[in-house]
Amino acid sequence: MSQPHHAVIIGGGFGGLNAAKALAALPVQVTLIDRRNFHLFQPLLYQVASGGLSPGDIAAPLRTVLNQYPNVQVLLGEVTAIDAVARTVTVCGNPAPYDTLVVAAGAENFYFGNADWAEHAPALKTVEDATEIRSRILTAFEAAEREPDRDKRLAWLRFVVVGGGPTGVELSGAIAEISRDTMRADFRRIRPEESQIILLDGSDRILPSFEPDLSEKAARYLIRLGVLPRTGVRVTSIDAEGVALTSPKGTERIGSRTVLWAAGVRSSALGGILARQTGVELDRGGRVPIGADLSIAGHPEIFVIGDLARFEQDGQPLAGVAPVAMQQGTHLGRVLRDRFAGRTPPPFRYVDRGIMAVIGRHAAVADIGGVRFGGHLAWLAWLFLHLFMLVGYQNRVLVAIRWAFQYFTYSRGARLITPGRV
Amino acid sequence: MSQPHHAVIIGGGFGGLNAAKALAALPVQVTLIDRRNFHLFQPLLYQVASGGLSPGDIAAPLRTVLNQYPNVQVLLGEVTAIDAVARTVTVCGNPAPYDTLVVAAGAENFYFGNADWAEHAPALKTVEDATEIRSRILTAFEAAEREPDRDKRLAWLRFVVVGGGPTGVELSGAIAEISRDTMRADFRRIRPEESQIILLDGSDRILPSFEPDLSEKAARYLIRLGVLPRTGVRVTSIDAEGVALTSPKGTERIGSRTVLWAAGVRSSALGGILARQTGVELDRGGRVPIGADLSIAGHPEIFVIGDLARFEQDGQPLAGVAPVAMQQGTHLGRVLRDRFAGRTPPPFRYVDRGIMAVIGRHAAVADIGGVRFGGHLAWLAWLFLHLFMLVGYQNRVLVAIRWAFQYFTYSRGARLITPGRV
Repeated sequence: MSQPHHAVIIGGGFGGLNAAKALAALPVQVTLIDRRNFHLFQPLLYQVASGGLSPGDIAAPLRTVLNQYPNVQVLLGEVTAIDAVARTVTVCGNPAPYDTLVVAAGAENFYFGNADWAEHAPALKTVEDATEIRSRILTAFEAAEREPDRDKRLAWLRFVVVGGGPTGVELSGAIAEISRDTMRADFRRIRPEESQIILLDGSDRILPSFEPDLSEKAARYLIRLGVLPRTGVRVTSIDAEGVALTSPKGTERIGSRTVLWAAGVRSSALGGILARQTGVELDRGGRVPIGADLSIAGHPEIFVIGDLARFEQDGQPLAGVAPVAMQQGTHLGRVLRDRFAGRTPPPFRYVDRGIMAVIGRHAAVADIGGVRFGGHLAWLAWLFLHLFMLVGYQNRVLVAIRWAFQYFTYSRGARLITPGRV
Repeated sequence: MSQPHHAVIIGGGFGGLNAAKALAALPVQVTLIDRRNFHLFQPLLYQVASGGLSPGDIAAPLRTVLNQYPNVQVLLGEVTAIDAVARTVTVCGNPAPYDTLVVAAGAENFYFGNADWAEHAPALKTVEDATEIRSRILTAFEAAEREPDRDKRLAWLRFVVVGGGPTGVELSGAIAEISRDTMRADFRRIRPEESQIILLDGSDRILPSFEPDLSEKAARYLIRLGVLPRTGVRVTSIDAEGVALTSPKGTERIGSRTVLWAAGVRSSALGGILARQTGVELDRGGRVPIGADLSIAGHPEIFVIGDLARFEQDGQPLAGVAPVAMQQGTHLGRVLRDRFAGRTPPPFRYVDRGIMAVIGRHAAVADIGGVRFGGHLAWLAWLFLHLFMLVGYQNRVLVAIRWAFQYFTYSRGARLITPGRV
């Protein structure tokens, strides 16, 4: 009796989870390894950061998501080493052998070499990031309410979001809504609706991955909500009192006690380990180049998918977004099935079903199959799509109810200030 | 024009919140001070600790709860000093004057002088306590799944809850349900339903504040769920590997990697400050004795209510439970109104509407006006009463839905392992 084929998947994000489900249908023993015990629906993390949802609403325990597949096991732990010759990964000091390895370790926050900015400008990647940002936003209003000095009060009521991609747009829109609607009646001395929200981006428009007309629409929606988008600016330093920046107009400083980072991520450190083990060369973003079957050159048994992978299609690398990771994960099932059958698997091809970003209530921009639209319709499409994609039926129902409350009462149910990371 | 009467309330728990609402109806300027920005519904905290609810589900922002009262303001901060002569309290270094002071600062965890036990046996008082306990419980099952050594694995699968009051009973029952139902299908190597849950209490029965027949019923329900209650035992030490205890049978050690503390609380440190300022003598539990109008002897302008107060009724001090604090808070409105009108307020009298404790699904014990009952009916009464008492309409709806999911699917929606307190 031969040992069953053993596939190890590192990472339980969109890519890893879809890979586990795809491989579960094959005669393969699957081990999914993650540092966290839950899958996190990152597209809604900004709503945790703005007090609309609880972390539990957008997280699903990996074990439960996968417990219907008897040939899948979940292991909680951090992978510290990969041995591509012995074909083992090291988790919590113990080696685990693999026949097929899928690395779906994703990306982490990156401050372009300014690691000291992290303390003053938290980014939005983990549940802890989100509750930290939530605490900072809510604490700023509390501090403003207590502050007798006018200039200091204004610095507490000024919020700067660095990075005008979808996360920055959604986060700044959410802060505007909190201050204009949710907390309007909650204070006695300050008027939260007078707070300033500034969205900075280095390129010449926000949402640079969208078509220019949608960027312009999004900017209009943001301004209507009370967010000031400022493009073509470069942040040169961030400290506890605000940000310094350069723009075509010269240098300048914005005094703000709450600076949030939505400007950059970098591939997981596992990319470096893979490079040393396989001799493959990472790209500038630290991503691992993969071939048509999603494997590393010279190592058909090692696959890399999602944000950590660099897959070129039509001469362009695919963006680090959830749908790419999901489709790659699913494609792996096809690859292994064909290989087991002695067939050559078809090359992976990403089917772009569109991109969207939401800007507060009633507004969003969407580009679906080249059809570009904004406003109410895009907003409704965003709502239903995100509810549908959310993992776990209970989460879907709860998020739908929270959204209904938010919509009709302007309230946000999870406005807790909890101690930050130490 | 004279200054309005200014009432300062310290603490936004059950007592302080009810006091603020009662005083809001009078010609009084009210300032409610709390270290946290939310009111926490502590009776359901054990459900956060066991992954059934999210912290946001049982917390309500104090500002929002009170924003309908224009004469109430909320201040986020810690009171570090009280000056009973100058009639000021110090918050964040700034003095705030008062005409009436209401101290409703509650209680904190207490390890009977063994502060080093806290690290090994977290207690359940704050949101952070609850997420820490949740992480420890879930991590124990993960560690057991990874552990090859049988004895070590059993220590990970053995849970000890110290303290057989309502919190200990509810928490141990919840752990039993998680292991028997929720996570039954989630593991491949261990069988979570084989985990042991041991509930320790020093007195001769669990739920010593209930009548003996209800204690016995509760013990039967616990055993049916898979919890082993052990009474008449005294814990002599707690470390990372388990607990040592003495019982009539001698000394003994229980190996367990998850020990939880539900055995003792102590009054807030503000009691000591009040004692030094007013010359009043605290009782053994650190509580401040108060008179018939809930004020401190010699200081009719300083009231103490809730867990921090010692109020004797029929020769017995009232217990530190939510209904006492709530009724005292409400009574304060009557006291001030009568005083303003030149009348003597009626003495406070606690109306005991009953006590209950829940033990897993379908079982609870209740003593309502001397009518003692258990089982399904008590469980239903517990459910509706707690939903009804929960602050915030949104919270009520969300908790009802989460409970419905738990009931029908045995799942628990908020099973996140998040880093512990540092």
